[in-house]
Amino acid sequence: MKLLDSTAKGVYLITVTPFTDTGALDLPSTDRMVDFCLDKGVTGLTILGIMGEASKLSAEESLQYTQRVLARVDGRVPVIVGVSSPGFASMGELTRSVMDAGASGVMVAPPSTVRTDDQIAAYFDMVNETLGPQVPWCLQDHPVSTGVQMSTGVILRILKNSPICVMLKHEDWPGLAKLSAIRAASDKGELRRVSILTGNGGGLFLPEELTRGADGAMTGFAWPEMMVDVVAAHARGDVERAHDLFDAYLPLARYEQQAGIGLAVRKHLLQQRGVIASAFVRKPGPKLSPQDLADLDRLVRRQDARLRALG
Amino acid sequence: MKLLDSTAKGVYLITVTPFTDTGALDLPSTDRMVDFCLDKGVTGLTILGIMGEASKLSAEESLQYTQRVLARVDGRVPVIVGVSSPGFASMGELTRSVMDAGASGVMVAPPSTVRTDDQIAAYFDMVNETLGPQVPWCLQDHPVSTGVQMSTGVILRILKNSPICVMLKHEDWPGLAKLSAIRAASDKGELRRVSILTGNGGGLFLPEELTRGADGAMTGFAWPEMMVDVVAAHARGDVERAHDLFDAYLPLARYEQQAGIGLAVRKHLLQQRGVIASAFVRKPGPKLSPQDLADLDRLVRRQDARLRALG
Amino acid sequence: MKLLDSTAKGVYLITVTPFTDTGALDLPSTDRMVDFCLDKGVTGLTILGIMGEASKLSAEESLQYTQRVLARVDGRVPVIVGVSSPGFASMGELTRSVMDAGASGVMVAPPSTVRTDDQIAAYFDMVNETLGPQVPWCLQDHPVSTGVQMSTGVILRILKNSPICVMLKHEDWPGLAKLSAIRAASDKGELRRVSILTGNGGGLFLPEELTRGADGAMTGFAWPEMMVDVVAAHARGDVERAHDLFDAYLPLARYEQQAGIGLAVRKHLLQQRGVIASAFVRKPGPKLSPQDLADLDRLVRRQDARLRALG
Amino acid sequence: MKLLDSTAKGVYLITVTPFTDTGALDLPSTDRMVDFCLDKGVTGLTILGIMGEASKLSAEESLQYTQRVLARVDGRVPVIVGVSSPGFASMGELTRSVMDAGASGVMVAPPSTVRTDDQIAAYFDMVNETLGPQVPWCLQDHPVSTGVQMSTGVILRILKNSPICVMLKHEDWPGLAKLSAIRAASDKGELRRVSILTGNGGGLFLPEELTRGADGAMTGFAWPEMMVDVVAAHARGDVERAHDLFDAYLPLARYEQQAGIGLAVRKHLLQQRGVIASAFVRKPGPKLSPQDLADLDRLVRRQDARLRALG
Repeated sequence: MKLLDSTAKGVYLITVTPFTDTGALDLPSTDRMVDFCLDKGVTGLTILGIMGEASKLSAEESLQYTQRVLARVDGRVPVIVGVSSPGFASMGELTRSVMDAGASGVMVAPPSTVRTDDQIAAYFDMVNETLGPQVPWCLQDHPVSTGVQMSTGVILRILKNSPICVMLKHEDWPGLAKLSAIRAASDKGELRRVSILTGNGGGLFLPEELTRGADGAMTGFAWPEMMVDVVAAHARGDVERAHDLFDAYLPLARYEQQAGIGLAVRKHLLQQRGVIASAFVRKPGPKLSPQDLADLDRLVRRQDARLRALG
Repeated sequence: MKLLDSTAKGVYLITVTPFTDTGALDLPSTDRMVDFCLDKGVTGLTILGIMGEASKLSAEESLQYTQRVLARVDGRVPVIVGVSSPGFASMGELTRSVMDAGASGVMVAPPSTVRTDDQIAAYFDMVNETLGPQVPWCLQDHPVSTGVQMSTGVILRILKNSPICVMLKHEDWPGLAKLSAIRAASDKGELRRVSILTGNGGGLFLPEELTRGADGAMTGFAWPEMMVDVVAAHARGDVERAHDLFDAYLPLARYEQQAGIGLAVRKHLLQQRGVIASAFVRKPGPKLSPQDLADLDRLVRRQDARLRALG
Repeated sequence: MKLLDSTAKGVYLITVTPFTDTGALDLPSTDRMVDFCLDKGVTGLTILGIMGEASKLSAEESLQYTQRVLARVDGRVPVIVGVSSPGFASMGELTRSVMDAGASGVMVAPPSTVRTDDQIAAYFDMVNETLGPQVPWCLQDHPVSTGVQMSTGVILRILKNSPICVMLKHEDWPGLAKLSAIRAASDKGELRRVSILTGNGGGLFLPEELTRGADGAMTGFAWPEMMVDVVAAHARGDVERAHDLFDAYLPLARYEQQAGIGLAVRKHLLQQRGVIASAFVRKPGPKLSPQDLADLDRLVRRQDARLRALG
Repeated sequence: MKLLDSTAKGVYLITVTPFTDTGALDLPSTDRMVDFCLDKGVTGLTILGIMGEASKLSAEESLQYTQRVLARVDGRVPVIVGVSSPGFASMGELTRSVMDAGASGVMVAPPSTVRTDDQIAAYFDMVNETLGPQVPWCLQDHPVSTGVQMSTGVILRILKNSPICVMLKHEDWPGLAKLSAIRAASDKGELRRVSILTGNGGGLFLPEELTRGADGAMTGFAWPEMMVDVVAAHARGDVERAHDLFDAYLPLARYEQQAGIGLAVRKHLLQQRGVIASAFVRKPGPKLSPQDLADLDRLVRRQDARLRALG
């Protein structure tokens, strides 16, 4: 498979990991989910992220799932695999096995134990040493889940020290100023240009981020076509249409991005759309209440009406 | 002034504290802001909260500002004053002075140092002792700013131990299940009923919260009429209209609720609407960039169009 | 091997994981370390804890190291294996493999993501489900490393819900009051009695903890004989002698327990004592400076003199 | 009173704030405490720190207490006042009032809300602006209480940006390497030399810190003569004697430095020594149990014996 590089753009969808109703890996649903994403126009997939329940899989399951996704994708789009680990031995091990299996690159977030700029920069020096000079990687900046605040300065420092870090997954919130500053640094030639894909608040600032110079989105949503269409409208210069599309999906996206129950919402909606067979979430994980389901019914119905009106 | 009680409902607006361009208290803008809020239909005001830059005022300024607001309100609606303090001596001192000046009640959030259920419950026992049996108070549940996670169980425990805690400001995120559980407890008679006003994500879940039994909203937004109208539509049973109104304001509300720059956005918009003379935010505080202002211009223009279409 | 039960007492040493100078597992040093610990009188071993660099081992290394320790111990004392994991799939997998290999039980700490009493209790319900009814386990209460504060109430709740949690590793700081309260609960018959082994501040409160009813220690120190002798003196009622011994080791123990460089200090001292061949610590990990080494030379020399004087 | 400057050395004792048994300020005990400290040889006092229960005093009490201490000291040694505040308005207000009253300087710690190097440095730029060019100040580096980790680099940056920051209170743990690095920077002329007083773990690393170049100690302990004598022995080159003295006090110092109950221990011991009339600690605060008191009786008795033996 082609390796990830810094020209990546469009929508790299963060996928869920489908389980059966008894909690086993659901490989037929995995195939269906891959087909669904590609049909909707995503330009890449990112698997084994937080919303992919990566930490709830055994080592064997992680590899089995990765192999299934790669087989189904069959080289049509790049696949990035999350390899953040509590230790470098397991990070290296997982990286080698998924790259051998045909992944295009890996994604790494800092552990919650690093705090100061120096600690963060030193951590990614060790990441570079662990991944080696051949594996392209994506830096994940997601303070909400990691607790690590990376200033613009420290991100630029990591990018300078990391020859094959080719992508930034930008999820800091609020992060519009940070996005502008990082883009400005490469525009001024202080830094090679990397791909920046955003996932701010789960994509809740997508149109503004595109205006700031993001190359696309890397996040999850049960309607990946929203991101695909918003990015496309923006790319052809139709910013108002990008906002119109975005606004039509916003009420439901807002609901799906709630911390805590978001994953259960997403799996429920993907099941309703016929993509996955079961909305099962492994423990520890949220369950939807009848009131949540009623909320979703209303939000989906209203979204359908807005999309019809929008044409 | 009438004291706060558990029948409170509608919209208690979290107000900004207006400064002049050189950072002094702006008392004429304070008057204008009070008038603006009452014109738009709010049923109460909450001052000296986080978004009111309470910690950036000197003790003298806090009192001066409180007196000015109370004088202008002149008993038309209840005014709640935030009195969260690092110590009980200053909490008691501030409470006595604002109640003497005519406030209707106070609001208290837990300090970031309490963690376990027992620590949280013990803290509010001391709050009750500090406030005494005459001062009605509102419990603020806002983990994003305090770092304190209060489970449903611990909130019920606090309410049981606090005879004159008459209101819950519910801002946990996601918190719909918590809201349902607390309301269910009083419906079943396990607990006296308190007023629940919500501010979840800055009001970003208002229609769903009203459906779960919230009595209204306590948060800030440069268009308080949004909350007033949504609450009113919901109260008369027109849930779809409540959602229509909410959705029309959502793209801008989402932008204003960004952590970090939200207050600067709100003050800028209130200045644009002619409510306050200056958008000055005291240090440490954010400043808006030209790109932020361009975002806001677009969002306001699009919001105006949607509101016209909605009628 | 005999399974762990609630009669456990004495000293369960938290072992380091020996590496060669190039960072590979050092199995001959592992054997020598096992022999050293048993010679000094420890009554159990705990491997793959934080100070055993568990997170820096690959899955294969973890199992290989466990098997080597178990083979060398050969049933002479119980061996507990740390199995705390980001997910239950990997916790279950590791538990099964080490119990099959002959471990006596496992140890589990809560993940940093749980906060409220209910979240903590629910987490350990899932731990019980994961480990099943046959695997005795030890609850690790170590807020300094996990960030999780478990109140006395929540610990009692976990113990009540966990039929084969047979041991508490008590490392909260300060924790003397907690230790007294938990012991009092079983003395009053509110709870079955479990073994309590302490590691408070790395054993820095051992004599006081024994007086409060601890059954011994579970922590690491380059002189395990200190803990063995203190526990023995205390057990035969010679509390003053227990303090004399403890005080003689305290200046060095204090230095070895420094957060951050403690593990490097311990490995250096064990190398000096001829137990392990290399003081290598895997990344990310501290290195000792010449000034640190000079400090240690002085502290060891002074400790030797005090021990000679003590007889 | 003479202003604080960077030649400060010796022992700046962090004082407790004495209360009566009913919780009022105890001014006669305050006088006695000042006399006690000066009799024991301290070279400065630091009041209104965390262990001085500063946050539990009202604004009026803070000023009254400061004035009483300053009157009793009467210029014999410098007095530093803690002015860390949630906002700059109150920090400025308190600073002006205590400097007017005759304080020698103030002490500031960062608020728990700053995280990145840039945020920390920017915060202290605002501190400099708030304090103005006439007020000498001490930078407090105490991650255990603030949650803020300041790297060596960021401390050097603050010192460079702060012309009249004349002192560092060094309490990071472990912090020996940091202390060495900061001292090395001024030795190499990269930075003007500031006074460094340490309080690491409550003074638990004092002899090693003096060897690394600390100018003395700033912390609290019920036996201030320990620090005075250790610093004096070290200053005259008798490092072994410094360690002998330190080791004699270490078992009790270790107990007094326990997080959570340390302040109650210190006040109890000061009451027993006849310095203050009551061991009262304002809420929220710990209480000693009969078992704690028994521990202390033993530790004091054993300490007395060691001191007699030491001569």
